[in-house]
Amino acid sequence: MRYSMINEAAARKLDSEDVLAHVRERFVIPDGTIYLDGNSLGLLTHAAQERVQQTVTQEWGQDLITSWNAHQWIDLPLRVGDRIGQLIGAATGQVVCCDSISVNLTKALVAALSVQTARGQRRHKVISTVDNFPTDLYMVQGLQDLLGKGNCELQLVEEKELNSTLTDDVSILMVTEVNFRTGRRLPIAELTRLAHENNILVIVDLAHSAGAMPVCLDEWQVDFAVGCTYKYLNGGPGAPAFVYAAERHHATMQQPLRGWMGHAKPFEFSNDYQPAAGIRQFLAGTPPVTAMVAVEGALTAFDHVDLKDVRDKSLRLARLFHDLLHDAGLTQMLQCIAPEQEAQRGSQLAYAFEHAYGLCQALIERGVIADFRAPNYIRFGFTPLYTSYHEIWLAVQIIRDVIATEDHLDPRWQQRNAVT
Amino acid sequence: MRYSMINEAAARKLDSEDVLAHVRERFVIPDGTIYLDGNSLGLLTHAAQERVQQTVTQEWGQDLITSWNAHQWIDLPLRVGDRIGQLIGAATGQVVCCDSISVNLTKALVAALSVQTARGQRRHKVISTVDNFPTDLYMVQGLQDLLGKGNCELQLVEEKELNSTLTDDVSILMVTEVNFRTGRRLPIAELTRLAHENNILVIVDLAHSAGAMPVCLDEWQVDFAVGCTYKYLNGGPGAPAFVYAAERHHATMQQPLRGWMGHAKPFEFSNDYQPAAGIRQFLAGTPPVTAMVAVEGALTAFDHVDLKDVRDKSLRLARLFHDLLHDAGLTQMLQCIAPEQEAQRGSQLAYAFEHAYGLCQALIERGVIADFRAPNYIRFGFTPLYTSYHEIWLAVQIIRDVIATEDHLDPRWQQRNAVT
Repeated sequence: MRYSMINEAAARKLDSEDVLAHVRERFVIPDGTIYLDGNSLGLLTHAAQERVQQTVTQEWGQDLITSWNAHQWIDLPLRVGDRIGQLIGAATGQVVCCDSISVNLTKALVAALSVQTARGQRRHKVISTVDNFPTDLYMVQGLQDLLGKGNCELQLVEEKELNSTLTDDVSILMVTEVNFRTGRRLPIAELTRLAHENNILVIVDLAHSAGAMPVCLDEWQVDFAVGCTYKYLNGGPGAPAFVYAAERHHATMQQPLRGWMGHAKPFEFSNDYQPAAGIRQFLAGTPPVTAMVAVEGALTAFDHVDLKDVRDKSLRLARLFHDLLHDAGLTQMLQCIAPEQEAQRGSQLAYAFEHAYGLCQALIERGVIADFRAPNYIRFGFTPLYTSYHEIWLAVQIIRDVIATEDHLDPRWQQRNAVT
Repeated sequence: MRYSMINEAAARKLDSEDVLAHVRERFVIPDGTIYLDGNSLGLLTHAAQERVQQTVTQEWGQDLITSWNAHQWIDLPLRVGDRIGQLIGAATGQVVCCDSISVNLTKALVAALSVQTARGQRRHKVISTVDNFPTDLYMVQGLQDLLGKGNCELQLVEEKELNSTLTDDVSILMVTEVNFRTGRRLPIAELTRLAHENNILVIVDLAHSAGAMPVCLDEWQVDFAVGCTYKYLNGGPGAPAFVYAAERHHATMQQPLRGWMGHAKPFEFSNDYQPAAGIRQFLAGTPPVTAMVAVEGALTAFDHVDLKDVRDKSLRLARLFHDLLHDAGLTQMLQCIAPEQEAQRGSQLAYAFEHAYGLCQALIERGVIADFRAPNYIRFGFTPLYTSYHEIWLAVQIIRDVIATEDHLDPRWQQRNAVT
């Protein structure tokens, strides 16, 4: 349903009816800022702020080394992992918080290859999409160069060709659920079903899904997944990522980054690596506690929040944004590159626009934070936990004003120096 | 020179003559605690505390995504790396702060193998010591299983056999400068010279050296090095580690964990990985900013500190500790396992003792924090930036008292549950 003729009062009314409106109080909202970039770096929560303060001042500062037991630092990666698991449809013991997406992807790729080998499958092809997030592709390329193409070979296809590519010579399908540029959401359940029909294992990158919409890894029978915590999970800049491995693979999978934290008996300091049971074996080195407690704190923002409500509000915010842009006569100039159908969308809208970089900078100057992606896209992220309908209304007024005054053409924006 | 008949006043006098005494003010010293475990987790500095607070509250909380440029988060790994470089004898552009030691070791191992391949060397043997820190060995084992023994094969030897093992069929010598149990310090300069005579590349783990003594990577011509920041560098629990690659290898080395942050042009989001020039190519994913700013803050504790003074005081503290223990008649019961010669020692002393675990626990209860290492060692770390001679004197009084009252035999300490 289209939003039409929404004025400021009507936008405020939408907020008054919003079941998630109260969750906004859990966040630190910067004055004078309309933040539409939670798909890149989520807002700070009061809980994360307090948790970091407490950990640094008391746990590290006063209790020091004893905190590994006294404050259960030692269980942090699994504890946080299980909490993330609740948001991505994973039963306990299958998710661990650690390292970066990139590093975790290497673990998942090697683990998946090892499962195929254990099954007697001699396949080496890894299928992914041409517009997957580049780092995901780089990790496969790194492995390809390390192992040789005979053991791991990346093949890139268009998203729409995926189904026809899932043939029985493929070892792994590696996809990102929501495309970082276009916001297109892939049908993971269906792709996994097709892949499994041909004994292909599925690795999913949830960077733009976790915390933005319901994800059902167990139900969809995904094999491995990775994701970051600094976007919709609000864990803080560069916060530790997570990795999921379906329980059915725990006994056979092997991952190469064998740190002491993933050992069955880490404190025996034995010379021979013996993987811990379950997902713990995906741990490598000592985790960055100061950063990980921020994630744990941030996740409390999801307490008593239904992800169906999050998804519902996400789509409404996006629809309102686009409809207001349309009413303002701007959707010819700004070409939406998101799929038409809402079910195929993530929690962002991206627009192709010749002056996307200038528009982005001019908006930032007026307190509307979006981001630019090369070559000519401006992305707006919608984060239902803290974004209000009124903010969407205001943002569109400001966009209209920038374009009317041609601020986006200001010579200051000629030099491109993108932020992440 | 032996310390003899040092009483409390004499210990205080040593403090009054200590050129590093003023540095203690840079640290948060917990009341009622004598902390002899800085070799496991260094104390909090006021600077790190303020830096984390500022980063969370202002940079993340208020400035959000713009902080990548506005607060130079984007340069953090190289900036912190260069500052660490100053402490380990590395000219700028050769050290980067990121990931964990374990993960960085994998990068260094593969990079070293790639340099050998580029030189036309078909060697696959990696020599290390039987009592190296286990995680280092696990990482090689992981690579061995991944690549096959024909491409990477770990061979373990005793420390004293190292010299004779450096023959021309060896690809990599991987050693830790200071042994985590015995505190024995290996002669890295000499080992590197011997290794290079046979075209063997050298990887050094500086976990127990960086910040504890002068390290001269460039001068010693070490090829690659890794280290952690949470021990003598006081970066906080599980803080990001560092990796060093000598500039002469930058053009040829290849590492497999190719994240977008290590790309030559990370913001072009190209599908093909092109490594950044220099040490930046060792970056993989987005770094944990909240944890890394703590490292940057903590490193200011080394401002205007000469590492020769640090080493000098470290040896004095250890000597005083051991001599007082000797004067108390305890060095028969507690068997020092450190090398006799101070030049061969790191910044800790470990003692074999049947009831090491109980002693460690009884001491913790009385505010003296040491640590236990299986099977029967108690370790005392000496951290010259914040440990006073008077604290050493007090610690030995307390040890004497625990043993006199047999508190270390308390049944509560029967169950072993070690901390890291």
